[in-house]
Amino acid sequence: MIRDAELRARAEVVIPGGMWGHMNAQALPPSYPQFFKQASGVLIKDVDGNEYIDFICGFGPMILGYNDAEVEVAFESQRARLDATNGPAEVMVELAELLVKTIPAADWAMFSKNGTDATTACVTIARAQTKRRKILVAKGAYHGAAPWCTPRPDGTTAEDRAHLISYTFNDVASLTAVCAQVGDDLAGILVSAFRHDARHDQEMPTLEFSNAARALADQYNAALILDDVRAGFRIDIGGSWEPLGVRPDLSAWSKALGNGHAIAAVTGNNRFRDAAQRVFVTGSFWCGAASMAAALATVQKLNRIDAISQMVRLGDMLRTGLQAQANEIGIGLRQTGPVQLPIMLFDDDADFAKGNLFTTTALRYGVYLHPWHNMFLSAAHTEDHIATALIATQHGLEAVSQQFPQKS
Amino acid sequence: MIRDAELRARAEVVIPGGMWGHMNAQALPPSYPQFFKQASGVLIKDVDGNEYIDFICGFGPMILGYNDAEVEVAFESQRARLDATNGPAEVMVELAELLVKTIPAADWAMFSKNGTDATTACVTIARAQTKRRKILVAKGAYHGAAPWCTPRPDGTTAEDRAHLISYTFNDVASLTAVCAQVGDDLAGILVSAFRHDARHDQEMPTLEFSNAARALADQYNAALILDDVRAGFRIDIGGSWEPLGVRPDLSAWSKALGNGHAIAAVTGNNRFRDAAQRVFVTGSFWCGAASMAAALATVQKLNRIDAISQMVRLGDMLRTGLQAQANEIGIGLRQTGPVQLPIMLFDDDADFAKGNLFTTTALRYGVYLHPWHNMFLSAAHTEDHIATALIATQHGLEAVSQQFPQKS
Repeated sequence: MIRDAELRARAEVVIPGGMWGHMNAQALPPSYPQFFKQASGVLIKDVDGNEYIDFICGFGPMILGYNDAEVEVAFESQRARLDATNGPAEVMVELAELLVKTIPAADWAMFSKNGTDATTACVTIARAQTKRRKILVAKGAYHGAAPWCTPRPDGTTAEDRAHLISYTFNDVASLTAVCAQVGDDLAGILVSAFRHDARHDQEMPTLEFSNAARALADQYNAALILDDVRAGFRIDIGGSWEPLGVRPDLSAWSKALGNGHAIAAVTGNNRFRDAAQRVFVTGSFWCGAASMAAALATVQKLNRIDAISQMVRLGDMLRTGLQAQANEIGIGLRQTGPVQLPIMLFDDDADFAKGNLFTTTALRYGVYLHPWHNMFLSAAHTEDHIATALIATQHGLEAVSQQFPQKS
Repeated sequence: MIRDAELRARAEVVIPGGMWGHMNAQALPPSYPQFFKQASGVLIKDVDGNEYIDFICGFGPMILGYNDAEVEVAFESQRARLDATNGPAEVMVELAELLVKTIPAADWAMFSKNGTDATTACVTIARAQTKRRKILVAKGAYHGAAPWCTPRPDGTTAEDRAHLISYTFNDVASLTAVCAQVGDDLAGILVSAFRHDARHDQEMPTLEFSNAARALADQYNAALILDDVRAGFRIDIGGSWEPLGVRPDLSAWSKALGNGHAIAAVTGNNRFRDAAQRVFVTGSFWCGAASMAAALATVQKLNRIDAISQMVRLGDMLRTGLQAQANEIGIGLRQTGPVQLPIMLFDDDADFAKGNLFTTTALRYGVYLHPWHNMFLSAAHTEDHIATALIATQHGLEAVSQQFPQKS
């Protein structure tokens, strides 16, 4: 990867460490490219011309395929007329109306740019409505990269998290205990759509836990806040806790909402409308009409083509096929969470040596997987893509089997 | 404004209060439109088809004209190939290189989406580098809308600002005193490019103040952080304190950087490189290559056409012409700050009744001004636009003179 190495060297000079955040390829094995030059459908091409079937989807934003014609026409047509000026365009109202119609828990919507904007606004609105301070968060959950929630403490202060109290996901006793501890200072219970912490097996919320979270929020007159930034529009078009029959008071959305265009949203119910009106949250580009047009087209198309069923069907094909391969070879492989947001972790692999070997082998066969972060299916993946992926995973598993023979 | 009223009524149902933040037209007189349908050059058209010469420029982002052909070709060409995927495109390195070359204080750059992302990252980096907590901010200054800096307290906690200490802009004694008070817990001194608080006369930093800010940051081994989000690329292409000969350690940029496309940047010197590498700040769309291509084209064109000189020349024409009109009519009008970021405030106008009448009259003559927020010139404004604006301001001043006769 000559071109990639050249760009990394140039980047090292003008960008601290050459890259930042969750897209820093230095967190991945060296054969992963840092720089890309093309994306179309589910195919991405790195700057050296290597092409991959992408199972990361930009860490979630891509859900209909890169450069989806329908979304891009909507984006481009709005952009040519009006994007960002002194106020919004009509499309903002249309998008808010569509979200309210699509999301049963939503009576209203507001828009921003980053997932962190949305989770932060949810916390602020919860505090403004309840006039309380404490926010309960699951241990190890990711809710963004602002000082109050960033997973790395550098540059943050103790006060940034002074009113964050942690509980254990899916542990009703733990959640009940911290609610009691916080009592009448409880502003909100923040939950992820499911447990999707990096480097961990994923965990779906139990019915018992999700019902308890709702009941406790009601009991303490606090907000149930659903962070649907990562999972949103992949589990249920109406919100990831709809299948559980549990409706949050506030939800944070971003990633897949605009099929790759920068947009985030907060939705909420009428109990939190006044507070949402009172808080001052804003940004120069939050009314950008082109991204809103992209989001409108994305949600319409997701609905129309029943995208989630497609992702589930193909995700299931990938999971079932891969598990059969692992069983056949005799490798302990754990696939957890929803099939459309898969993670693949090996037994006895604390340092991810097996995961790295598995995914770098797949990479050589043109399939872009992640060794320790959840992945994303899209509605643009086809059975052929899954078949190709399963050829790559077969090679990956064989490499693991050779290098790490099973103790028998 | 029938269509605007219809949209406001629909928005009221699905968006708390119908709108949020700094683009909420409810903060303006009723004749201001909330919704727009077109923007090209310096002309914006509201949803009822009224066209205005725009002196707000989207509150800053528009600097080369809406839909500038050069910027849009760059944006569109990159978007068609690759926007947001699992890593950046080559354009990220080119843009960082261009900023480092253009901004004398910058040894490196990082990118994000919102001005608030950039100011927050600056504060985080300053704390990470110094391992201290206190950030000094000027009373009344706007640095974004996150809980630590939003101007409205609803939903924030005391702890969000536990380590913010305020000083008075341009008051060396005040800044010196808070530095001494904070002592070895001083992480950074945050300064705006100039005092541009809404509803106030603007104030350029004095040489004495800017030099003192630099000297105090050095003396306490803290960061001098320049918030150049609002003024960036309109005062000096290399940073707004370049004309003062004072270089910040860290700078926050956004707004004009991409001529309306959503992008923000932090630039810094080598003293803060390690910390910038250590902090974890990120966002799903921060590597969006199309916005970076737009920013690259914007900065290149700003440089090539000497955009700032044009904005200064036309801003001066507007200020001089308007002052002559006010003097002739005998109205006390204060125009302060840089001519390319003008504000127009009337004497004896605590409730902005004069300002509102002045700007709504100008609006009727097709000129979009703001009654109490600073405005923005762009390189797309021409002498003809200024001449038209001066016809509108003449009518505006006459209306003020009639309704508010001078006491003599």
